[in-house]
Amino acid sequence: MSRFAGYLPILEWVREYNRGALGSDVMAAVIVTIMLIPQSLAYALLAGLPPVVGLYASILPLVAYALLGTSRTLAVGPVAVISLMTASAAGSVAATGTAEYLEAAITLAFLSGIMLAVLGFVRAGFLANLLSHPVISGFITASGILIATSQLRHILGIEGGGDTLPKQIKGLAPNIGDFNIPTILIGVSSLAFLFWVRKGAKPLLVILGFKPNIADILAKAGPILAVIAAILAVMLGGLTERGVAVVGAIPSGLPPFAVPQVDFGLWSQLWLPALLISIIGFVESVSVAQTLAAKRRQRISPDQELVGLGASNIAAAFSGGYPVTGGFARSVVNFDAGARTPAAGAYTAVGIGLASIFLTPLLFLLPIATLAATIIVAVVSLIDFKTPLHLWKYSKSDFAAHTATIVMTLAMGVEVGVIVGVVTGLILYLWRASRPHAAVVGRVPGSEHYRNIDRHEVITWPHILSIRIDESLIFLNARWLEDYVLERMAEKPELRHVVLLCSAVNSIDASGLESLEAINHRLADAGISLHLSEIKGPVMDALKNSDILEELHGIVFLTHDRAIAHLIQLTSGEPEGEDHWHARGLI
Amino acid sequence: MSRFAGYLPILEWVREYNRGALGSDVMAAVIVTIMLIPQSLAYALLAGLPPVVGLYASILPLVAYALLGTSRTLAVGPVAVISLMTASAAGSVAATGTAEYLEAAITLAFLSGIMLAVLGFVRAGFLANLLSHPVISGFITASGILIATSQLRHILGIEGGGDTLPKQIKGLAPNIGDFNIPTILIGVSSLAFLFWVRKGAKPLLVILGFKPNIADILAKAGPILAVIAAILAVMLGGLTERGVAVVGAIPSGLPPFAVPQVDFGLWSQLWLPALLISIIGFVESVSVAQTLAAKRRQRISPDQELVGLGASNIAAAFSGGYPVTGGFARSVVNFDAGARTPAAGAYTAVGIGLASIFLTPLLFLLPIATLAATIIVAVVSLIDFKTPLHLWKYSKSDFAAHTATIVMTLAMGVEVGVIVGVVTGLILYLWRASRPHAAVVGRVPGSEHYRNIDRHEVITWPHILSIRIDESLIFLNARWLEDYVLERMAEKPELRHVVLLCSAVNSIDASGLESLEAINHRLADAGISLHLSEIKGPVMDALKNSDILEELHGIVFLTHDRAIAHLIQLTSGEPEGEDHWHARGLI
Repeated sequence: MSRFAGYLPILEWVREYNRGALGSDVMAAVIVTIMLIPQSLAYALLAGLPPVVGLYASILPLVAYALLGTSRTLAVGPVAVISLMTASAAGSVAATGTAEYLEAAITLAFLSGIMLAVLGFVRAGFLANLLSHPVISGFITASGILIATSQLRHILGIEGGGDTLPKQIKGLAPNIGDFNIPTILIGVSSLAFLFWVRKGAKPLLVILGFKPNIADILAKAGPILAVIAAILAVMLGGLTERGVAVVGAIPSGLPPFAVPQVDFGLWSQLWLPALLISIIGFVESVSVAQTLAAKRRQRISPDQELVGLGASNIAAAFSGGYPVTGGFARSVVNFDAGARTPAAGAYTAVGIGLASIFLTPLLFLLPIATLAATIIVAVVSLIDFKTPLHLWKYSKSDFAAHTATIVMTLAMGVEVGVIVGVVTGLILYLWRASRPHAAVVGRVPGSEHYRNIDRHEVITWPHILSIRIDESLIFLNARWLEDYVLERMAEKPELRHVVLLCSAVNSIDASGLESLEAINHRLADAGISLHLSEIKGPVMDALKNSDILEELHGIVFLTHDRAIAHLIQLTSGEPEGEDHWHARGLI
Repeated sequence: MSRFAGYLPILEWVREYNRGALGSDVMAAVIVTIMLIPQSLAYALLAGLPPVVGLYASILPLVAYALLGTSRTLAVGPVAVISLMTASAAGSVAATGTAEYLEAAITLAFLSGIMLAVLGFVRAGFLANLLSHPVISGFITASGILIATSQLRHILGIEGGGDTLPKQIKGLAPNIGDFNIPTILIGVSSLAFLFWVRKGAKPLLVILGFKPNIADILAKAGPILAVIAAILAVMLGGLTERGVAVVGAIPSGLPPFAVPQVDFGLWSQLWLPALLISIIGFVESVSVAQTLAAKRRQRISPDQELVGLGASNIAAAFSGGYPVTGGFARSVVNFDAGARTPAAGAYTAVGIGLASIFLTPLLFLLPIATLAATIIVAVVSLIDFKTPLHLWKYSKSDFAAHTATIVMTLAMGVEVGVIVGVVTGLILYLWRASRPHAAVVGRVPGSEHYRNIDRHEVITWPHILSIRIDESLIFLNARWLEDYVLERMAEKPELRHVVLLCSAVNSIDASGLESLEAINHRLADAGISLHLSEIKGPVMDALKNSDILEELHGIVFLTHDRAIAHLIQLTSGEPEGEDHWHARGLI
């Protein structure tokens, strides 16, 4: 039962569901629905799809997540970055506006859903760790820039497009003179209103007597007001005849239920973008879900989130939608509006379903420029210029991964950008991991402590070399350790004993073990014994399953000081250098 | 000068070169030459190339390495595993025996040479760390099996071939009835003699009065004896007429000097195999070079080795050869025979050059079966059945990477095998790195020490959670730490303070920092303060370049005990559970 319940999180909350929770959830659903209608239309536009596809992607996927997701308040649906990635991937196999393009978008949702669900069933959520914070934040900044610039043409009322910055510039430049004044007026006033409403509406509403939290929620309805005002403006001004592009006829009714086509040719073209969409979507969604869960001391299960998001995307594919994930803005609204359980998501689905039946005729005259303004206002907050400064100060290699991701995403598109970011991050990590820290140590006079000879005044002996390893011994640094020990050894002609101080070695893998064995043999070839000291318990347990303890040409000591005391006796050695003299002076 | 000398290691030894070194080097060169002649012919056969190409690959590359390599005793030339990889890669673009096939082999050497040299100049030797010991050893075992089985057809005198085990079986099965008795006799007796000579010749020679080290070297000439005997047998028995395949006409003379063709179509097909050949060759060569250098307390420079091997392969490409690397067997012979400087390699090149001028006519009647026997005897020692057993005992994940490499190499060929091995190793590593160890700790009664609550009887407090992190905080485990802390937090309803004990945290990258900040904010949202204790010096230096120390809703303590003492005062907390009762009993 408990195992089964792990895959059906609904069982955890549905039995305690009561009228209080119902009221909260319905209230939150109404608010989220009002916010989602313009956003869904706009993101579908961004993805190069008919606006109604955005509504379709906001119905069944929400129900699927309510059944299988572990976050109580996450709101799934179309989001900006995933819409951009969908446009880029679908655009690479079909022309915008064709049936093939829509089919490609549905296939992306289907593939991505399968991949997420499979990763969830094999508990492979850890793969998302490949995306470091600098890479994600670089990717989101670059995506925000690409999205905002891609919408400029709708504000200006000209042709253009492209999935990279150079292509967008090349696409816009020749048409820049064709701008349409009424479109610009609508676009710019929508932009101005939407930017103001984000910051200015709440204080105004508070002055008007609303409670702060109510004012906050009402301010979130700003976009729907802009939509209504823009429709009225077009209607009253007869602006369609003056060149203002509008949404046009949207088919009314619930989404079509259709089994997605299985076209292996298309799958082989789209598997990589689908995988990237899955991972980016998962990483974004989980971080939103974790943030919200922590506020109420709830927990989410990242692996089960994969299953929930997978089901959502499969549901999107079966109902004419496109890839979805948990969105930040809508989830925060859902949370703030008081949603208590995933049922709120199901009620939102009902709301969007009603909208797609009854509301779509009213949206005929909605100007594209207003939707573009909605998108621009939403994504400008994604663009983050502080992170590069912080990274530059904190870590040059993280800065490099961040910058590479931004530049490559802008120059070559979202897919190349993510891949370059991940690869850069991994290479820099492997580079650092292959050069860990170690230090030659000596005894602090009059103590049992051993410290780095380069930083402290310590006593050493010509026949003994003490090396402290500040890292686990794994394949990435196995060769480094051999190098390090042999180089230090070459510096001490009278050397007879090497002691590795292992207090900071948390694990030793088979390559690390092999390397220790190689060091042992090579030292033995040169007439030197290898000793180990202060090995941690679990590491020692593992070493007992190998031959190293028998093969070692030296001794394993419990403490480093015992090792040194023993070896001094063996070699009747005296300290070397100035300390030598100093130590004798003390006697 | 010193920087320049780093790229021209010859400057280090050439000024001290004297008659003693000359004598030792010439002696070693003669012995290595005798050993190399049959081996070079045999490995060229294995690579699917005319035998003389093996000789060509053993002349200029040796001179290039003598100039640029850092090992005093490494002997470069054709080796078994690289020959197999060459056969697989060249076979994928051309048919054996064609001019295109030879061109592909030369291109592989050229590309591989350029890649190695570039990696050397950018000091990227660390990339070889991607190959863990279990992956390399699995790859070499599987290659040994593939090589041995690929030679069976020459011993039986039948047709066949293929670069994977299934293909070999499919290739051999229909022809198995066509075996040729005289070929089998020659092949099996060559095999028997060569196996015996490896173990039995030395003791016999010692009994005959030779010194052990001389006997050892003479025994290494066994293959050349087998070659001479086999040629005589074919000549005297007229065996070519009875169906014994022989080497046939080999063009006499020095290798042709020719600039390799630059065919970008071919390059795009061969860059991946060339990269794999480079990395495998480099890893093998460096481990041989390090082993030998350590015996004489010498040092090699892995990055400069890349340059030396790169130059060798470029030299091979300019002189009609194919990819080369430092070989284990020949280097050991060179070392044991007393070679003192890389000049020995240059003298060996002269020896092989003389052989290719004067000796090739004598090799007309050399049976292919004898060369196949030479190969089988050489590679049987590569096959290692002990490693899987050791790995199974020591580390299941290393065992998994090892087994995956063997199975995929046998089933899908050398390229897929290496890639699967590297990817499996990395995924298992990332999986482990993303789940590091941490422990909730409590105070050992009557002390200032803090230990894992699951392993020791310790005191804890209901308002305070102490977590010891046993790993650096990096992007691979950043999400894990958030999960871990939030899960532990959810277990303690009265919690007010979390203290992270950071004594084992060797570094914190930007993702780890971001994660700490997220934990700080999320705990604050739940009314809990985050404190840190025992941060290492270099980590603290880095954190001072970030905002975390200002944003922290808690305090950074020098020792964990001070943290606990302070927080107990703050919360006037009493210990919880049995220890609570116990502690009160003590008062």
